[in-house]
Amino acid sequence: MQLGVIGLGRMGQIVVDRTLDGGHDVVAFDLDDDAVATAADAGATPADSIGDFVEQLGAEKRIWLMVPAGKAVDATLDDLDPHLNDEDIVVDGGNSKFQRSVERAEACSAAYLDCGTSGGPAGAEVGFSLMIGGPAWAYDEMTPVFDAVATGPDGHDRMGESGAGHYVKMVHNGVEYALMQTYGEGFELLANGRYDLDMETIARTWNNGAVIRSWLLELCEEAFREEGTPEDPLGDVADHIAGGSTGTWTVEESLEQEVPIPLIYQALAERFDSRNEGRFSRRLANRLRYGFGRHHIARNE
Amino acid sequence: MQLGVIGLGRMGQIVVDRTLDGGHDVVAFDLDDDAVATAADAGATPADSIGDFVEQLGAEKRIWLMVPAGKAVDATLDDLDPHLNDEDIVVDGGNSKFQRSVERAEACSAAYLDCGTSGGPAGAEVGFSLMIGGPAWAYDEMTPVFDAVATGPDGHDRMGESGAGHYVKMVHNGVEYALMQTYGEGFELLANGRYDLDMETIARTWNNGAVIRSWLLELCEEAFREEGTPEDPLGDVADHIAGGSTGTWTVEESLEQEVPIPLIYQALAERFDSRNEGRFSRRLANRLRYGFGRHHIARNE
Repeated sequence: MQLGVIGLGRMGQIVVDRTLDGGHDVVAFDLDDDAVATAADAGATPADSIGDFVEQLGAEKRIWLMVPAGKAVDATLDDLDPHLNDEDIVVDGGNSKFQRSVERAEACSAAYLDCGTSGGPAGAEVGFSLMIGGPAWAYDEMTPVFDAVATGPDGHDRMGESGAGHYVKMVHNGVEYALMQTYGEGFELLANGRYDLDMETIARTWNNGAVIRSWLLELCEEAFREEGTPEDPLGDVADHIAGGSTGTWTVEESLEQEVPIPLIYQALAERFDSRNEGRFSRRLANRLRYGFGRHHIARNE
Repeated sequence: MQLGVIGLGRMGQIVVDRTLDGGHDVVAFDLDDDAVATAADAGATPADSIGDFVEQLGAEKRIWLMVPAGKAVDATLDDLDPHLNDEDIVVDGGNSKFQRSVERAEACSAAYLDCGTSGGPAGAEVGFSLMIGGPAWAYDEMTPVFDAVATGPDGHDRMGESGAGHYVKMVHNGVEYALMQTYGEGFELLANGRYDLDMETIARTWNNGAVIRSWLLELCEEAFREEGTPEDPLGDVADHIAGGSTGTWTVEESLEQEVPIPLIYQALAERFDSRNEGRFSRRLANRLRYGFGRHHIARNE
């Protein structure tokens, strides 16, 4: 089949490559001409405008959006919508908030599939995990492309109605935060514990047969191999974690549903904490120890 | 080489089988005659007493203990010690507390290796992850057996001096608690969230290419396949988690080292919580809402 791809960043380019490798045709568009040229080199048909893009797709358009979540999705849909009808299909493969995907599905002239995409750039080789929400007929119609972009037929499924794909991806990311932080805590205790231990050796030994083996633990092993030294694991990697939107949405949803998720919340809090130069709460506790006990007040220079 | 194995439960039997499969000889002993017979059927030489066991091993004894952590280890060592000298090697493959392993290593007449063993009964096929502490010469001497019992040469390593093996295994288990609880939180939110979702489908889709894929997530998929129904995931599986010793030791060590591990602590707390019929703290909070606001007091029948 023929797929149109809009958004040719790192992830979009992988969608192009894997779709082509699956034996399908791709029409590729991006605001960045260089990205379009890269896709064309890979075998895609380049488009130089949205008008050109929809013209080349012809009737029954199947379009994959891989643009940053937020305004870029809306701007692209605004440009596309006049060219779409209810036999067309649009897939949003980004990390959009599920409530927005529901609204966009209602507003879009085409069938709209929200598609949570996990696996990162490493997905180029093994394929992605795709969590999809929206009309069943559109999901079925797109299956040949999902088979190619995912790890295979087991790497994608329809989670449910509109929004369900991005909903499941949101929770996936909340889980991801807490898994990362958990490995972090374990290695921090080992690195600062009473034995002189080698973090890379531990990660490798665990990755071979231990209950806690995982892809994230393989990435820990890679991190210890590539950063710092055995004496100074992670080297100059800073205590600063960016991001946090999907984790925040997960915690917001847990509050709305009254489902306690303390580990996921704590992992999100660690991110916020990592971005503070000095926590007000701790500064107050520092001063209060003086207040009641005349303990020394540590002060900034 | 020749290995003596004491303790022929589920895990000990796997040590016997994998050692035999690796082309080595095994002398097997257990207080349970049936377990000895099972090992003999697999190709091990049976021993009917500790005396018979050490006699059959001859000089340069290499002994693997796979008995429950605690008194069983001490009782076995008490029986063995008169027959051991400093050219012999004893491996404790159980979940002993690392401080006890250090003490036992000091008291034992043989070289003593503390060996954290992860992988569970599933290790029968893929092999275990072995985290080993103790004298380097003894570790090197035992390498052929470790190669056979572990997933291979990458599945075992010497972590450091005496106690380091059980120390790393202790932290492994603390991490394991928090990983399990994190997946639990994610699936609980999905199962009680705003979409009608199928837990097994989600787990399978995640296990194929998602960042959070892992062996524990494969076990989640298996649990959703084997327990309950899509409408009632997990069926009659109770909200009750047993165990907790290695997690408790991990938190105790984190307090001693002043390394905060809030997610691991919370996962341990969830276990304690799961074993309470009714929390005193919540009962008091319930009553206090009446105290200040005359809110309804929910009461047991």
